[in-house]
Amino acid sequence: MKTSTKKAMSNVFVLPPEEVPKKWYNLIADLPEPLPPPMDPKDGPSRLEMLPKIFLHECLNQEYAKERWINIPEPIRELYMQAGRPRPLIRAKRLEAKLKTPARIYYKTEFYSPTGSHKVNTALAQCYYAQKQGLEHLSTETGAGQWGTALAYACSMADIGLTIYWVRAVYQWKQDRRNFMKLYGAKVFASPSKETQAGQELLKKDPNHPGSLGIAVSEGMEHAATRPGTAYSLGSVLNHVMLHQTIIGLETQEQFKLAGDYPDLMCACLGGGSNFGGFTIPFMYDVLTKKKKVKFLAAQSMVAPNLQGEFRYDFGDHAGKTPLLKMYTLGHQVKMAPIKGDGIRYHACGPLLSVMRHAGYIDTIAYPADEKHVFDRAKTFVQTEGFLPAPESAYSVAAAIDEALKCKETGEEKCIAFNISGHGFMDMVGYREILKEIE
Amino acid sequence: MKTSTKKAMSNVFVLPPEEVPKKWYNLIADLPEPLPPPMDPKDGPSRLEMLPKIFLHECLNQEYAKERWINIPEPIRELYMQAGRPRPLIRAKRLEAKLKTPARIYYKTEFYSPTGSHKVNTALAQCYYAQKQGLEHLSTETGAGQWGTALAYACSMADIGLTIYWVRAVYQWKQDRRNFMKLYGAKVFASPSKETQAGQELLKKDPNHPGSLGIAVSEGMEHAATRPGTAYSLGSVLNHVMLHQTIIGLETQEQFKLAGDYPDLMCACLGGGSNFGGFTIPFMYDVLTKKKKVKFLAAQSMVAPNLQGEFRYDFGDHAGKTPLLKMYTLGHQVKMAPIKGDGIRYHACGPLLSVMRHAGYIDTIAYPADEKHVFDRAKTFVQTEGFLPAPESAYSVAAAIDEALKCKETGEEKCIAFNISGHGFMDMVGYREILKEIE
Repeated sequence: MKTSTKKAMSNVFVLPPEEVPKKWYNLIADLPEPLPPPMDPKDGPSRLEMLPKIFLHECLNQEYAKERWINIPEPIRELYMQAGRPRPLIRAKRLEAKLKTPARIYYKTEFYSPTGSHKVNTALAQCYYAQKQGLEHLSTETGAGQWGTALAYACSMADIGLTIYWVRAVYQWKQDRRNFMKLYGAKVFASPSKETQAGQELLKKDPNHPGSLGIAVSEGMEHAATRPGTAYSLGSVLNHVMLHQTIIGLETQEQFKLAGDYPDLMCACLGGGSNFGGFTIPFMYDVLTKKKKVKFLAAQSMVAPNLQGEFRYDFGDHAGKTPLLKMYTLGHQVKMAPIKGDGIRYHACGPLLSVMRHAGYIDTIAYPADEKHVFDRAKTFVQTEGFLPAPESAYSVAAAIDEALKCKETGEEKCIAFNISGHGFMDMVGYREILKEIE
Repeated sequence: MKTSTKKAMSNVFVLPPEEVPKKWYNLIADLPEPLPPPMDPKDGPSRLEMLPKIFLHECLNQEYAKERWINIPEPIRELYMQAGRPRPLIRAKRLEAKLKTPARIYYKTEFYSPTGSHKVNTALAQCYYAQKQGLEHLSTETGAGQWGTALAYACSMADIGLTIYWVRAVYQWKQDRRNFMKLYGAKVFASPSKETQAGQELLKKDPNHPGSLGIAVSEGMEHAATRPGTAYSLGSVLNHVMLHQTIIGLETQEQFKLAGDYPDLMCACLGGGSNFGGFTIPFMYDVLTKKKKVKFLAAQSMVAPNLQGEFRYDFGDHAGKTPLLKMYTLGHQVKMAPIKGDGIRYHACGPLLSVMRHAGYIDTIAYPADEKHVFDRAKTFVQTEGFLPAPESAYSVAAAIDEALKCKETGEEKCIAFNISGHGFMDMVGYREILKEIE
């Protein structure tokens, strides 16, 4: 990857399309502790044996790859360019002035995406591999809806069909996002659905069953297992998803070279970890190889502070259909109150980042469930920098602003970087309900 | 303005931030017929004498400037960069393949904007001039809401207050957009309102008056005229607005150099003309100076086919409070049925473009009021290129696709360019109601 020789003339650091990175960075090669392997539970059918039947082959290869750098196929790079990559890094000069902080603040604009979030980075890669494998269809589940939208877009770009199982309670009220997925050509079912045996059984007991993410996972997996030419696709937690998302941090590193700066602190919201990992993992390489010191801060909600949980084997889903993964977890059946930043409401942090947390490289802050502080911080950002963060991304904004205000007290001239993983154009209801004054 | 020497390696043509144009192009210098001056009507107070009292001085200067090139102040260029300029030009290879057309199709991505539309290009300029003039506040009206949002953003960037009068019938149902404007700090009133004498009088007769754009204009103008330190701001029709919007076409010209191509046909939707003018006017210079031949095609609705109207003096607003401008018009009190592409539902085309139409340089197509064809074309675009156009921009998409399909019949290898003036994330209701299949 060559470094742009153009001198930066503004607060906006942009790489030309041809400088989209050519390799993803695989943290497995440099982990400070060995990555614990996935395991089967004592009871029930083998989850591990099922994986090759329903997962994309190339993604399974990448899941346990040992190489430090993994080539990004040229067609994926082209899709990345068309989807707005590389995305700008911006120095938040107006925000700095408003806060009167000595800190230098930068944000990465992942919201400049066709569907409005960073999820497209892995969706495009997975669909390319599906096409290459000769598949005609993918299945998945979605909770908040960002992942379903991103995969619907990517399937559309690869001429591959998609069936989405969407937790009924969310499916019913997120009408715009549902229409958007269908506009791309995806089939979207409220889960539990009549499409699968698992769904049919639940509907027999309760025709208006509200569903859960665990049930939707079960339906997505059954869909792939019982239909030829179909694979099951996931948008967070797993190692290959983190790998694809490193494109964010790799670009950010080149942009910091343009800026002549380097972050002391990186903030991002963390649910399963794909946004946090994508942004920070390439910088973790610099830290693990002792080239740099960076503090990594995960912004979470008190309803799902999974990094404060136990480091142990647990299921990835509510119903226990996945293999066991060693993760920081609150327990796969923990009850979590609803929040507007629904995308970070997940019981566990993906295995790769859990190892890094265990080895002491990741700090965390959890914000109160009422989300007032988080949305207030987002409002400050909107009024100074002009961009509307998604509710999840508002947590990243809040962490960055809180840290910049600490610098104001201490006088530290820290360099703080955060990632805005998505925009909030389809989530104004969150702003409205939390910030009464804009009603 | 220097031309990038970087070789284009993809279908995405991107200029670095430092190549944001340094001058706007002023078509007044090259018009094939003289620009008819604005006039006062026979009756009532002088509208012309009122202009300097409520309009921004620099914008009034630019309204009748004779110079071909007008410098863009450096702080405005910096704001443009922060707002995502230059915005990419993309070759629509997947759309071309889907249509099986020999035409080469390119689209400009104006939707990559903090508020989601091209309106920010003039909003940022006007707020900079307001700040320079020492003003503390602006007032405006808005119909569909794109302009109100863009000005709310720009005022926030310039630390200037804003009062928006929004047609009550629209204010009430566009809740997300209303919250978005308020999040930027703007005061937003349903019009008619209690804030002005004009509004109070109407409310006395009917406390639930649904309002009209004409009433909102009256309130915005009265607001500026009666409050010190306040000016009135407009987002379309006028010459200085077209001037600021030429940034779109100027960038597009440089991007076509990168692509090694040049458009034979340019399509854009046209209401008052700021999107169409901004995209095409720099190319009109090439045509007027005989350097190139380009066909300019305005995409309109049959409910407001103003370019098929009469070329005569008319008011810019329903209530007749503005000066008379010579324009292609359907009459300032014509009734127009509601459509989803509300932003192109305007009775007249701005004076500059009207002269060009009169001189034979602009063709037009008007689409049926049911909008089915337009949204079907937008769906084809979404499924091939992945981006979600605003309902107004769907008209540009439809015109480009229809022309590309004509090329398929004739075998012509035309180069077709169109502009996507805004995204549709806040307008899914339009897609849903027109395309029943995505419900």
